[in-house]
Amino acid sequence: MTDTRIDGFLDGRLRISQPARGYRAGADAVMLAAACPARPGQAVLELGCGAGVASLCLGWRVPDLAITGLERQQTYADLARGNAYANGIALTVLTGDLTDPPRDLRDASFDHVMMNPPYFLGGTAAPDAGRALARREETPLAQWIDAGLRRLRPGGWLTVIQRADRLDGVMAALGARAGAVTILPIAARAGSPAGRVLVAARKGARGPLRLLAPLITHASPRHDRDAEDLTPLAAQVLRDGAPIAMGIAKAA
Amino acid sequence: MTDTRIDGFLDGRLRISQPARGYRAGADAVMLAAACPARPGQAVLELGCGAGVASLCLGWRVPDLAITGLERQQTYADLARGNAYANGIALTVLTGDLTDPPRDLRDASFDHVMMNPPYFLGGTAAPDAGRALARREETPLAQWIDAGLRRLRPGGWLTVIQRADRLDGVMAALGARAGAVTILPIAARAGSPAGRVLVAARKGARGPLRLLAPLITHASPRHDRDAEDLTPLAAQVLRDGAPIAMGIAKAA
Repeated sequence: MTDTRIDGFLDGRLRISQPARGYRAGADAVMLAAACPARPGQAVLELGCGAGVASLCLGWRVPDLAITGLERQQTYADLARGNAYANGIALTVLTGDLTDPPRDLRDASFDHVMMNPPYFLGGTAAPDAGRALARREETPLAQWIDAGLRRLRPGGWLTVIQRADRLDGVMAALGARAGAVTILPIAARAGSPAGRVLVAARKGARGPLRLLAPLITHASPRHDRDAEDLTPLAAQVLRDGAPIAMGIAKAA
Repeated sequence: MTDTRIDGFLDGRLRISQPARGYRAGADAVMLAAACPARPGQAVLELGCGAGVASLCLGWRVPDLAITGLERQQTYADLARGNAYANGIALTVLTGDLTDPPRDLRDASFDHVMMNPPYFLGGTAAPDAGRALARREETPLAQWIDAGLRRLRPGGWLTVIQRADRLDGVMAALGARAGAVTILPIAARAGSPAGRVLVAARKGARGPLRLLAPLITHASPRHDRDAEDLTPLAAQVLRDGAPIAMGIAKAA
């Protein structure tokens, strides 16, 4: 049995059990869900859904979705199932590895795939094995994106959040298999380099790339009081569950 | 004989003859020069130097550079030589094609290569043949970047300005041959998608990618009075010839 704690998301509208000492999803998962342009009635797959934060944020915002989460670690998959039930949001969680997906998944295709692949390449092992698996890359980024593209219908949308310094890896993996690539830099402060990027792309599309104005998350120039310091746009996304319009995003 | 007109750059500090009806360089060439981190004593190559605007802006800012410009069109190469002389800035202009460079160039290597490759793929022919050649891509973007990387010493810097919607093409052409890629989005207005990107990369380097805060060129939300409307940072670059610090760029 894993020690868990309850974290509130979307200003407490969602209550999510996550491992007390393991990897815990945060703002990045919420922003990933905000950027996924799913419409009611569509099918969505999240690769590496962890305890379900992104999928549940999306299900909270958009009604009548068929959301599937794939998670390699049994502990997290079980938590995601419990979190879906506790929050009254439909989420099908499959336990399995994206490099060798369960048969149910191999036969399916989706309108949207979203993912928040691990941010760290190898490096020092985290004290908790589950956290280490979730944070450290064992499956290369290119394989995540390849698996996502395979599960999309033609014209379907892939949405990825990743460290900004790996934008080159994301774009190389997309290659010519997806177009209409839209990049939203996410920066902690105005004038700072991006720390994260949200990248959306359409499978098999030919539209031009767009590099949007950054989403600035924090208002004050110094990192004083994190929670109190969100820009209005970041607060809409992180507290109110507003979508991020990758098509028409404006700076705060 | 081509009809020419004199355009002022850097608040009139440089006076550049350009074809009256042909392609005329503008703010993009000035920003390209501003982003090239050349230091006194170094060797710089500009591919496709046109009438010499970027090379001469760079030579105006940094003393004791050995700057070479390669230009395919004889008319522009002649203008560049005349502009260098008239402005008292040393610039060696070679007439030739980057896909089949003159022997002098094939034997040389440079600390910096900068380029402003054509922005348009084919499309409608411009009324002026020289302008059409300068604006329309006949040599693919990937060949420009390949030629630039070949002419760089290991560790040398490539600096490119290009339409933002072709960032994918720039990054694909850089591939694994250059690292420490730094992307500076350039947007006309705060909150607008980038119209241009400045991309710097080091040949053979391994450093992580950085996605900087955008350089915003215009201050007012509407496009009213272009010349009067520059942000302070854009005015420093375009009027005063200040460098763009790709390492530590800050939003205006």
